[in-house]
Amino acid sequence: MAIERQYHSDCISIGAFKMGTGEVLPDVSIAYEAVGQLSPAKDNVILICHALTGDAYAVGNQERSGWWSGLIGAGRRIDTNRYYVITTNVLGGCGGTTGPASLNPATGRPYGSSFPLVTIRDMVRAQRQFLEVLGINHLYAVIGGSMGGMQVFEWGVMYPDFMDHLIPIATSTRLSGVAIAYNDVGRQAILADPGYQDGHYYPGPGPAKGLSIARMVGMITYRTAELFEMRFGRNIKDDQDQPFNANTVFQIESYLRYQGEKLVDRFDANSYLYLLKAMDFHDISRGRGSTRDALSLIKSKMLMIGIEGDLLYPTDHLREVYEELRRLGQDVQFATFPSIFGHDAFLVEFDAVGELIDTFLNKTNM
Amino acid sequence: MAIERQYHSDCISIGAFKMGTGEVLPDVSIAYEAVGQLSPAKDNVILICHALTGDAYAVGNQERSGWWSGLIGAGRRIDTNRYYVITTNVLGGCGGTTGPASLNPATGRPYGSSFPLVTIRDMVRAQRQFLEVLGINHLYAVIGGSMGGMQVFEWGVMYPDFMDHLIPIATSTRLSGVAIAYNDVGRQAILADPGYQDGHYYPGPGPAKGLSIARMVGMITYRTAELFEMRFGRNIKDDQDQPFNANTVFQIESYLRYQGEKLVDRFDANSYLYLLKAMDFHDISRGRGSTRDALSLIKSKMLMIGIEGDLLYPTDHLREVYEELRRLGQDVQFATFPSIFGHDAFLVEFDAVGELIDTFLNKTNM
Repeated sequence: MAIERQYHSDCISIGAFKMGTGEVLPDVSIAYEAVGQLSPAKDNVILICHALTGDAYAVGNQERSGWWSGLIGAGRRIDTNRYYVITTNVLGGCGGTTGPASLNPATGRPYGSSFPLVTIRDMVRAQRQFLEVLGINHLYAVIGGSMGGMQVFEWGVMYPDFMDHLIPIATSTRLSGVAIAYNDVGRQAILADPGYQDGHYYPGPGPAKGLSIARMVGMITYRTAELFEMRFGRNIKDDQDQPFNANTVFQIESYLRYQGEKLVDRFDANSYLYLLKAMDFHDISRGRGSTRDALSLIKSKMLMIGIEGDLLYPTDHLREVYEELRRLGQDVQFATFPSIFGHDAFLVEFDAVGELIDTFLNKTNM
Repeated sequence: MAIERQYHSDCISIGAFKMGTGEVLPDVSIAYEAVGQLSPAKDNVILICHALTGDAYAVGNQERSGWWSGLIGAGRRIDTNRYYVITTNVLGGCGGTTGPASLNPATGRPYGSSFPLVTIRDMVRAQRQFLEVLGINHLYAVIGGSMGGMQVFEWGVMYPDFMDHLIPIATSTRLSGVAIAYNDVGRQAILADPGYQDGHYYPGPGPAKGLSIARMVGMITYRTAELFEMRFGRNIKDDQDQPFNANTVFQIESYLRYQGEKLVDRFDANSYLYLLKAMDFHDISRGRGSTRDALSLIKSKMLMIGIEGDLLYPTDHLREVYEELRRLGQDVQFATFPSIFGHDAFLVEFDAVGELIDTFLNKTNM
């Protein structure tokens, strides 16, 4: 693959932003990455929406490889020689976009837990306002997995004429009870950490241990028991010899603790809490009658992708949504593939995900 | 059902006890419950082994109903008109048996985290020593689910001539990697709680919040996503009206937090940590060559019961164990039943579990 020459990342102001709660953030900044070249007709823009701990670096650069660099790039399945691919960091996040760690202009101090409640709809409206600032009034496609897929659904419902294609992956039209349950375990661990200090811990380290525990439980649910069994099983760290003692550490414990600590280095606990809440509250039917009523608003062609083995977003739910969309006469396709990576497959199985996206975007629309 | 007249519960000393680590506890007490009447030939004793947060009250009394009272009692599937049913609280527990909250005679203070490492094998050897004190040298059956089932396997391997029947339920011959992973989330939550104080928190409340979080994650894995979806889904607590706000609480969150707090009232966090570790270390092959080598030592008739829907102890593993036992020529049966209760089915589905036990113990052995 050639070095990506048409790469740009920046953070720009979109001015005042009104939240769904009615509160107004006086000056919102959006961090974004744009790769490729905007066509003169501005008809080749793809918006990528990231998941819980993602950021605007989907493609990334020489310094940091992006989380979807296996999928997006020159000559890749989402080809930046053809498309102008934009990824933003979500509102409430901690990757450059305005969020709880940002300074509240009214006080001169970070918002912390005084940041207003953020919903998936707020994220999408902020993205829309951001695109307006960029002078982009239409999208060829909106694509995202997990929390990113929630944004994809909301894009289709909130701005049906704004895009041609929607690709929600490993996601749902409303978070399930059991996913809310796992989120609450993580939330309680963060809130219980003395470092949390009611959400006003800046510039201190904050609830590092709590965030680490939240990440650990997340990681378990993102993958499958089969994968953990295959990779770690009951192996002991450093192949310590028997006998077991109170200090014996299993590889899987060591792996999860390390993953927890790694997230602490790059993610803000307040953002984590706000994004968990946004996911919990995600329900496209809210305020719109039924899920069917909400889905009926969509006008774009859709490809829904589910992962067999995804514990958090079971394909059964996506299949029900697909069938409802079909009954509504929508132009929708549904594809699933099995993966030992479970939910995380959308961040790992680039061949499987890429081929489905490629076929849908590039081959059935010729 | 008639009131149970032949009920006895007590706590007795079994004297000094040598742990697998070589350490000696100078005076171990075992809390137990005995229901029914010991036959003159002492050939009607059934030993019940409890799970992680269980205790000696399997049947219970007028004041407190036991956790297997639906299964054990006069006229029940495990009929105390026929069998003398004994349940002990495990070594390291907090239901009357010597554990971390007990006074260390050497210091006059509670052991706390200085209590020696406890294994499933230690639990079984303590039960054996306890039965000797009671003058019982043979068991008709050993029955238990989850951590109780681990004890059942070890009983069969360690003391093959001591019993006629083994019934391990919803368990395994070694804890899986993913179950170790979930245990470590709970462990980290307890250890991170400032109330833990390196395990020397008595008589204080201890790491209440950490234990509560550990229980929350446990509860999610004990049941199935389907059950949570059916019972709670995305329902809001107290049917609060829209709109959502930062204080909105989902019923499933409220339920789990309540379950967490309830455990704190009745369980010691140090015991929880010790029993998690005992489960993590459970592997019948340890020090015995292979799992096959260990299984070949068993001489009892076995009924293994697996629950379809059990996330922690998948029936696939039990089926492999069953097939290995069959290849070894063992007298073993294997039964599974589906349950929306998942792992917890052994504590809930008394009809299904009871019928299998009844048929195995009472009907195929006539």
